Amino acid sequence: MPKPVWPPARSWIAHYDRSWFTDDLTAGLTVGVMLIPQGMAYALLAGLPPVYGLYAATLPLLVYALLGTSRQLAVGPVAMDSLLTATGVGALAAVGTEQYLYLAVLLALLVGGIQLLAGVLRLGFLVDLLSRPIISGFTSAAALIIGLSQLPHLMGVDLGRSPYVQEILYSAIVHVPEINPVTLVLGLGGIFVLVGLKRWLPAVPGPLVVVGLAIAAVYFGGLFATGVSIVGEVPAGLPALGLPAMALTDVRALLPTALTIALIGFMEGIAVAKAVNARHPEYVVVPNQELVAIGASNIGSALVGGFPVAGGLSRTAVNDAAGATTGLAAVISAGVIIMTLLFLTPLFYYLPQAVLASIIMVAVFKLIDWREAVRLWRVDRSDFWMLAVTFLATLSLGIQTGIAAGVALSIGVHVYRSMRPHLAVLGRIEGTHTYRNVNRFPEALEEPGTLILRFDAPLYFGNMSYFEAQLESLLAERQRALHTIVLNAEAIAGIDSSAMYGLRRFVTDQRGRGVTVRLAGVIGPVRDAMKQAGLYEDVGRENFFLDVDQAVHNHCRTGYALQSNVP
Amino acid sequence: MPKPVWPPARSWIAHYDRSWFTDDLTAGLTVGVMLIPQGMAYALLAGLPPVYGLYAATLPLLVYALLGTSRQLAVGPVAMDSLLTATGVGALAAVGTEQYLYLAVLLALLVGGIQLLAGVLRLGFLVDLLSRPIISGFTSAAALIIGLSQLPHLMGVDLGRSPYVQEILYSAIVHVPEINPVTLVLGLGGIFVLVGLKRWLPAVPGPLVVVGLAIAAVYFGGLFATGVSIVGEVPAGLPALGLPAMALTDVRALLPTALTIALIGFMEGIAVAKAVNARHPEYVVVPNQELVAIGASNIGSALVGGFPVAGGLSRTAVNDAAGATTGLAAVISAGVIIMTLLFLTPLFYYLPQAVLASIIMVAVFKLIDWREAVRLWRVDRSDFWMLAVTFLATLSLGIQTGIAAGVALSIGVHVYRSMRPHLAVLGRIEGTHTYRNVNRFPEALEEPGTLILRFDAPLYFGNMSYFEAQLESLLAERQRALHTIVLNAEAIAGIDSSAMYGLRRFVTDQRGRGVTVRLAGVIGPVRDAMKQAGLYEDVGRENFFLDVDQAVHNHCRTGYALQSNVP
Repeated sequence: MPKPVWPPARSWIAHYDRSWFTDDLTAGLTVGVMLIPQGMAYALLAGLPPVYGLYAATLPLLVYALLGTSRQLAVGPVAMDSLLTATGVGALAAVGTEQYLYLAVLLALLVGGIQLLAGVLRLGFLVDLLSRPIISGFTSAAALIIGLSQLPHLMGVDLGRSPYVQEILYSAIVHVPEINPVTLVLGLGGIFVLVGLKRWLPAVPGPLVVVGLAIAAVYFGGLFATGVSIVGEVPAGLPALGLPAMALTDVRALLPTALTIALIGFMEGIAVAKAVNARHPEYVVVPNQELVAIGASNIGSALVGGFPVAGGLSRTAVNDAAGATTGLAAVISAGVIIMTLLFLTPLFYYLPQAVLASIIMVAVFKLIDWREAVRLWRVDRSDFWMLAVTFLATLSLGIQTGIAAGVALSIGVHVYRSMRPHLAVLGRIEGTHTYRNVNRFPEALEEPGTLILRFDAPLYFGNMSYFEAQLESLLAERQRALHTIVLNAEAIAGIDSSAMYGLRRFVTDQRGRGVTVRLAGVIGPVRDAMKQAGLYEDVGRENFFLDVDQAVHNHCRTGYALQSNVP
Repeated sequence: MPKPVWPPARSWIAHYDRSWFTDDLTAGLTVGVMLIPQGMAYALLAGLPPVYGLYAATLPLLVYALLGTSRQLAVGPVAMDSLLTATGVGALAAVGTEQYLYLAVLLALLVGGIQLLAGVLRLGFLVDLLSRPIISGFTSAAALIIGLSQLPHLMGVDLGRSPYVQEILYSAIVHVPEINPVTLVLGLGGIFVLVGLKRWLPAVPGPLVVVGLAIAAVYFGGLFATGVSIVGEVPAGLPALGLPAMALTDVRALLPTALTIALIGFMEGIAVAKAVNARHPEYVVVPNQELVAIGASNIGSALVGGFPVAGGLSRTAVNDAAGATTGLAAVISAGVIIMTLLFLTPLFYYLPQAVLASIIMVAVFKLIDWREAVRLWRVDRSDFWMLAVTFLATLSLGIQTGIAAGVALSIGVHVYRSMRPHLAVLGRIEGTHTYRNVNRFPEALEEPGTLILRFDAPLYFGNMSYFEAQLESLLAERQRALHTIVLNAEAIAGIDSSAMYGLRRFVTDQRGRGVTVRLAGVIGPVRDAMKQAGLYEDVGRENFFLDVDQAVHNHCRTGYALQSNVP
């Protein structure tokens, strides 16, 4: 495995091979060209003028190229972050105001600060709390919300802004009579061309073609007079560098949104970076360094007046497919945007907003994943319900509530399972020294006078009373002839002080009734904890055994149990 | 095990043995006599006139005797519920007002409704979320707060009410010059007599002696003129039956307090009921039925105008020690209180409040458990910190925040541990078929070309990426000569769809590199889940083995693996 260096870019700069350059150049140009319409579209989605999407596609890419551990991840404006920005900032200021612009920049700064701090504190593991069903349900619902949020641009009607799908749909239906027909035709046309190109000419950069066709149609067809909304003047030149003033009340108001974007944006990026990394064993994606890199990129976005950025799914896939070998590809993409800002902004004057909306819709609707829901219904009903709850909560209660509900539910189910774990009475499979669940293996027979039990969870405060109750009821059935209880502890991965207390009491109680309790296959960390708490003395050192067979026959094969197992 | 009947009292009424009666009578009278001063003291602690403590010690006891599964649990006013009542109701109304009385009764009704509902929904397991360190830290802090809350009565000064220990102490120090010396002497005298009797004459009912002495001192010593606060007129007669009107805004305001009391009150009762049950195998305490019983008792308390009740620690211990055999003892205790209400209330006119305060202080200060903290510091540092955080949070942020912080912390630590579980590389102990951690057993040697791994946790969304990362780094060290990976799955207690997805990808990746992945000792529920998800086909049926030894030698002893292990 390659050794990490700092900054991570040194690992490829130091050994840059000239043969890589053509691939990096092709990939960088391709992604840069994709970024022009996407950046403008996502700025619109975030409630900002399109040029801010180009700003956010400059410095952040350079910062990530320097600090990121993935060599293919394409950072920049992404749909999810943009929608969350619109929801979070939209609740505090009106679209089009100075205050809105200021809050969007402040949000990027906060997201960056949170991610940077989380990376330094090595909190990257928190992203593991998002299970696949949660991510799937959440992504499908968010894609639906994002897609539907483009209806006003497609219809050419102001529907007001709402993060709830039921309100968007209701408003859209009410406003059908006001539809601007030319706008609708442009938007639907854009969707058809994008879908058609993707299917029959996948090598052609659809968004760029659609943008070109639409500008030509508006300019030469004189469609402006029909009331079609166009992008209008895109300011030329590079953004000024500078950070926004940080008013404490604004920081506090934006904090929940910033935390959500920090988590979601990181999750999206790390997932795609890891997927791509699987095909590139020459480097390793380091989650905590990724947090630092994407955090610094967001601070970079705030520096150039941009909004929150993340590693994007589709552009990364294109970057990798086009042959990106190092971060140089991202530097070249940023160069394309910088050139566009300097020289090409007048070209976009007549670009209809409806076409940007069609680009967003086509991009997000393919993220809706019905198949995963159907598959889970078949193979894992409990995970299906988590997906369904997250999906419905996100749709009806909003993105933040949806993801919070999903995470809370999945942690709750995980904790509940560990509170009521599986346990099995074991019997010896005839003619072997192997012991298995008597309810599943008809050949496994219980030893006379001995109850052999396997408990499949760490013993802790949450399941100790369940463990005791289950044991009591098993004992009640067998009480008469019992002289030994063997606890197969191989699956007991940990033990806390509450469980230690309960176990001590149980062993003592049983001893009072003339029953010996033996522990088999206790794993190392649990042995350490028991030793520390003095449980060896309560249970009796002679009652620890390497495995169930030795415990049943009270036999320490070659003396290992006392020499090593119980140090 | 005895079969449950309904109502649970039928189990002892049907077989009541005359020989039990003397014991039940003695215990019932003893607890009844204890209840008179305790009930009045706890009513005072709850911010109510003393007689309400007697009301709360009538109907609830009868209801519990009918519906409870414990035959010794002594239900009635308890310190913790009373303090929580004072904090919760005190935030909404002034002590001594009609509104305060009404809210206290409404609180009892809400607590009862919540407990009853939780019992019907079988949510008794929720109490398992309170680990021993949390309970210990919380109890010590609450005892300190309760004890200090009596300072105003002991000093004879109004210090204002605060749930925070730092404010109580500050206020007490500021008001030292205003101390009423006679009140202080009566209170401190009460404490000395109670502690002295407990130590040298434990059979004497201390609280009753102190109350008697104090009434005599005030009456005959003419202390009333010195400004000593006395209980004053205790209304004679039984309370009228009736339920309070339920205003929705009041219900909403009381709900957090009601939820806390419902949980804490149940926890206290079930803990002591289970402890006593251990000495009485003739019946079984059923947690969900206990929720129903204590819930109905609280509704009973609301019916007679009382405040929230629970099963008390000290009175239950006395009840059991005095020989209580059935719920008849509780019926007799209630009878003592009813007689007191009918005929004896004038006796308490001159009872000084400082003496009731001394009874509370002596009762709660013995709940402060420093030894547990010291012990945990030695044997389980992580549990020590949970105790410490809960203790400090309860003291400084209040009881509800303290217990919430403790529960959140202990669940968080539990989840974190399952996200980063222990894993071990196994080697065969020479001359045996047993495989153990090579880092702990120097005699255990790795098999050439084979990596044997044990993962000590359920595989789920929270640890799948950790599992993959750990495996990758183990493989990187061994890559050259490896042909087989054996995963000892005995400690993998469950698997979810996220883990299934990761495992499938891992097995396929390894197969691409020419490495076979074998699973050994997969437990029943995990086999079921894998079968359901089609993982048998991905891993290959031939790669499932009963145990590690068979997997290492690719040998299905007597064919069990295919016949039964992989049905």
